[in-house]
Amino acid sequence: MRIAVLGTGVVGRTLAAALVTHGHEVTVGTRDPVASLARDGADGFGTWAAAHPTIEVGSFADAATGAELVVNALAGTASVAGVTAAGIADGTVLLDVANPLDASHGFPPSLFVANTDSLAEQLQRAQPGLRVVKSLNTMTARLMVSPLELPGFTTFVSGDDADSKAVVTRLLTELGHTDVIDLGPLETARGAEALMLVWLRLWGVVGSPMFGYRIVR
Amino acid sequence: MRIAVLGTGVVGRTLAAALVTHGHEVTVGTRDPVASLARDGADGFGTWAAAHPTIEVGSFADAATGAELVVNALAGTASVAGVTAAGIADGTVLLDVANPLDASHGFPPSLFVANTDSLAEQLQRAQPGLRVVKSLNTMTARLMVSPLELPGFTTFVSGDDADSKAVVTRLLTELGHTDVIDLGPLETARGAEALMLVWLRLWGVVGSPMFGYRIVR
Repeated sequence: MRIAVLGTGVVGRTLAAALVTHGHEVTVGTRDPVASLARDGADGFGTWAAAHPTIEVGSFADAATGAELVVNALAGTASVAGVTAAGIADGTVLLDVANPLDASHGFPPSLFVANTDSLAEQLQRAQPGLRVVKSLNTMTARLMVSPLELPGFTTFVSGDDADSKAVVTRLLTELGHTDVIDLGPLETARGAEALMLVWLRLWGVVGSPMFGYRIVR
Repeated sequence: MRIAVLGTGVVGRTLAAALVTHGHEVTVGTRDPVASLARDGADGFGTWAAAHPTIEVGSFADAATGAELVVNALAGTASVAGVTAAGIADGTVLLDVANPLDASHGFPPSLFVANTDSLAEQLQRAQPGLRVVKSLNTMTARLMVSPLELPGFTTFVSGDDADSKAVVTRLLTELGHTDVIDLGPLETARGAEALMLVWLRLWGVVGSPMFGYRIVR
């Protein structure tokens, strides 16, 4: 598949690199490619991009052109603007892995949308022609692409369109996710995003982000 | 221990009956004991009370008198008023198992407090002399008292006072809870209560309330 990843943070980089490994053609979109690529140093995006020469880096719109699937790996607060700027073709699947974190009040962050609405629904309303699927937002980036390091946890999928959930579920299976639960329509992302409120606390208690939710049943 | 259970619904009855089985002296408190006991029929509280003659039924205040631990098993919307009416002695542990469900918009309910506050914190603010501990709200009543029917799921505890969390954790262990995670201070109940947003969806997907969250780590 031709996949565009929006976002140059740890989540975006981790997903982009793994998707290439699985044989996909991957582009990465960023608001300002020149500024992003100028960030060198050990953790700089420019350094990462130089080490991944098969991954094309461009503007949100450049990256999204021709993509069969677009991944929103932007910060929650930047997601609606970034996805909108990408001008993604109607009918494209948007896999939203972001969380609506509000860090303005210190740690742990709360959510800037919750309970009766979700970031995934905000994206769907902003871009009604897309087919938004929420998934992967309930785990650390490494487990998104390397789930078999922690056997047995559950990965949730939410979305209004069965075909696009099937596309995402195939991708999840490729990456090694073994227990995928379809929670139902996109509004079930309210629950999946709210898991972040427990996740941030568990991170401290467990002492590592390498944990996951298993639905025992 | 002498334990008062506030609430005559399925959760209150299930907890009260199980706590007696484990050797505790249990009272059940209800807003209007005469009206509650008059409910006969197969599922009526009066029928249940007659079948459990060792459990004393009274007003919230009657039930709470002399209790070493009080369980809030009231509906979320009735919790602050009920706990306040009970006039519970300062220093008593209040085990809050309720969820702040707002059913006024149909199914599934949303939460009437979430994200930046919680029902547990509302109770603590309303009754600052109590030591509120949140637990057991993330599972169906049967699993609260019979967790070994579903081996391996995790039970969360939130509270500001280490001693009262230890009291509750001992009680959980007695009931058979094998994986108890202390999430931290009472404000971590925001996460535990938000799990209800996923729980209500999973109930439909799993087709049964006999499921639980395991933190795989």
